[in-house]
Amino acid sequence: MTDNHLVRLKSRPSGMATRDDFTIAREPVPSPGDGQVAIETRFISLDPAMRGWMSAGRSYVPPVSLGDVMRAYAAGHVVDSRHPDFAPGDAVVGLFGVQSHPVVDAALALRVDTAQAPLQRWIGGLGMPGWTAYFGLLEVGQPKAGETLVVSAASGAVGSVVGQIGKIEALRVVGIAGGEEKCRYLTDEIGFDAAVDYKAGNLLADLETACPDGVDVYFDNVGGAILDAVLARMNRFGRVAVCGLISAYNATAPPPGPENLRSVLVNRLRVQGLIVFDWAERYSEAIAALGRWHAEGRLKLREDVRDGGIDAYPDVLNLLYTGGNFGKLVLRV
Amino acid sequence: MTDNHLVRLKSRPSGMATRDDFTIAREPVPSPGDGQVAIETRFISLDPAMRGWMSAGRSYVPPVSLGDVMRAYAAGHVVDSRHPDFAPGDAVVGLFGVQSHPVVDAALALRVDTAQAPLQRWIGGLGMPGWTAYFGLLEVGQPKAGETLVVSAASGAVGSVVGQIGKIEALRVVGIAGGEEKCRYLTDEIGFDAAVDYKAGNLLADLETACPDGVDVYFDNVGGAILDAVLARMNRFGRVAVCGLISAYNATAPPPGPENLRSVLVNRLRVQGLIVFDWAERYSEAIAALGRWHAEGRLKLREDVRDGGIDAYPDVLNLLYTGGNFGKLVLRV
Repeated sequence: MTDNHLVRLKSRPSGMATRDDFTIAREPVPSPGDGQVAIETRFISLDPAMRGWMSAGRSYVPPVSLGDVMRAYAAGHVVDSRHPDFAPGDAVVGLFGVQSHPVVDAALALRVDTAQAPLQRWIGGLGMPGWTAYFGLLEVGQPKAGETLVVSAASGAVGSVVGQIGKIEALRVVGIAGGEEKCRYLTDEIGFDAAVDYKAGNLLADLETACPDGVDVYFDNVGGAILDAVLARMNRFGRVAVCGLISAYNATAPPPGPENLRSVLVNRLRVQGLIVFDWAERYSEAIAALGRWHAEGRLKLREDVRDGGIDAYPDVLNLLYTGGNFGKLVLRV
Repeated sequence: MTDNHLVRLKSRPSGMATRDDFTIAREPVPSPGDGQVAIETRFISLDPAMRGWMSAGRSYVPPVSLGDVMRAYAAGHVVDSRHPDFAPGDAVVGLFGVQSHPVVDAALALRVDTAQAPLQRWIGGLGMPGWTAYFGLLEVGQPKAGETLVVSAASGAVGSVVGQIGKIEALRVVGIAGGEEKCRYLTDEIGFDAAVDYKAGNLLADLETACPDGVDVYFDNVGGAILDAVLARMNRFGRVAVCGLISAYNATAPPPGPENLRSVLVNRLRVQGLIVFDWAERYSEAIAALGRWHAEGRLKLREDVRDGGIDAYPDVLNLLYTGGNFGKLVLRV
């Protein structure tokens, strides 16, 4: 008899989440009710937003309740179905949680085509991170051909797609990433015009060199000192899409805000937050565009798949906040 | 023979400008050239932006050069004209500088109607501060009837007009000002729904009481701790119009930025800087609307006219940064 191996949230972390904040257990697999599907999980998506979901307080979604299965996007196969639209063997993705054998309402499962791309890619560049990049850059960033786009966490799940869509849209694309290897990946493998290594210690000067005509669109995944540095280089009427604040997610006190707020005023910047859920009715548009670019070879995607299964969740998650992953971080179950 | 009494910028201030940063002198009045008008100044507008104009560095306008007459809006009468559109006695406003007897190209002078409103009002609520309020609230704030508007420096030149336009647009209007007298003015005299005294020491709690349904539009004139407090109360899809950063203008190091940047992300806020010059082609629209509301008694304007003439400029200016004025600050010449 198979168990459902799962992670429940035990306490609200202070700072970085630790193993003690979770209960990792094996429980009986429930039987699917009418209209439900039973799934065997293959891959669990690790996303920076997870740390926010663990905290109490007003946010764009309610926090995970203490004792509940930790919220997560995941990909797997249907093993039992009590809904006419799904059959055993179907590849599906959805908000299935950190568990090996979820049972969910069929409405929460999205069927994907593993002939078009491997399963793990559907929770990466072709999934929610890709949709975030698509709507965030095009709708919030409003880029125009010839403009300069800067994106932070540029080799990550969202950032790497943002930059490649930027090239498709005929922008000059500059990525900010940590370390030479990630920077080389941006320029040599996925076509960015330039890369800035924030760990090299010359962020302001390197950004100036990489953006000789200033910055028109900044897609921000990190906040903090990097946001401040880019604000100082923004052109008039520039747009800042605030997609993530990785630098702040584990802070125990609010981190200092951007000092260069004056740039917002002087340069008439538009700084706008975005959550991909707001475009839920247009996901199919993003899926179609990303799928087409991927098939044409114009959108290269990279996953950083970690082994260790459900047990490894707390440790693998924290790679996101220390820059330890390279590509979309995925846990193999 | 009359002299031109004027203020020239001598040095770039560090922190608050002092008398030593200026040369105050009497010089011969030049004769108007072809196409110019000679003006006798009656009122000089003191605006928070002046401190920025004294500093070197990239901004929305070039800084005042050392040795030049200090830039200022002013109102006065034509005393000599070498342009067919102007005649002695005409009331005019424009960027005439801190001087008693400017001579300017006629294109820089805007004729105003002192039968409609007293001269000093045309450099106040019916002039540039009023236009700033008009375009900033309506174009950047994009308010919808029934929403809650918060405005800081609410009894000032821009803020008081913002709030009254807000009432005309059927918003709940909350003003933030310093001291009981200013707060009473907002609610008892110009129709705000509530006022918050930031000097009372309970900013966060008082803001919550005044805005039971949260904040949809924040018109910010000050930045700093007040911006942070309002960010914490913003509703989803709220708009923040960044019009001024009075709290930062005299800082010698960049002041701390807003800690509540997370609110921008979580609530999908749009934070946008504005400079009134961007609507230069639509000033006549603002002049017409403000003039109509003023004539109808729906827009009440208050000037804080200080005596002392040109000599008093450095001291009167600094009232803006200490909250020492009450209404649009104007220097009588």
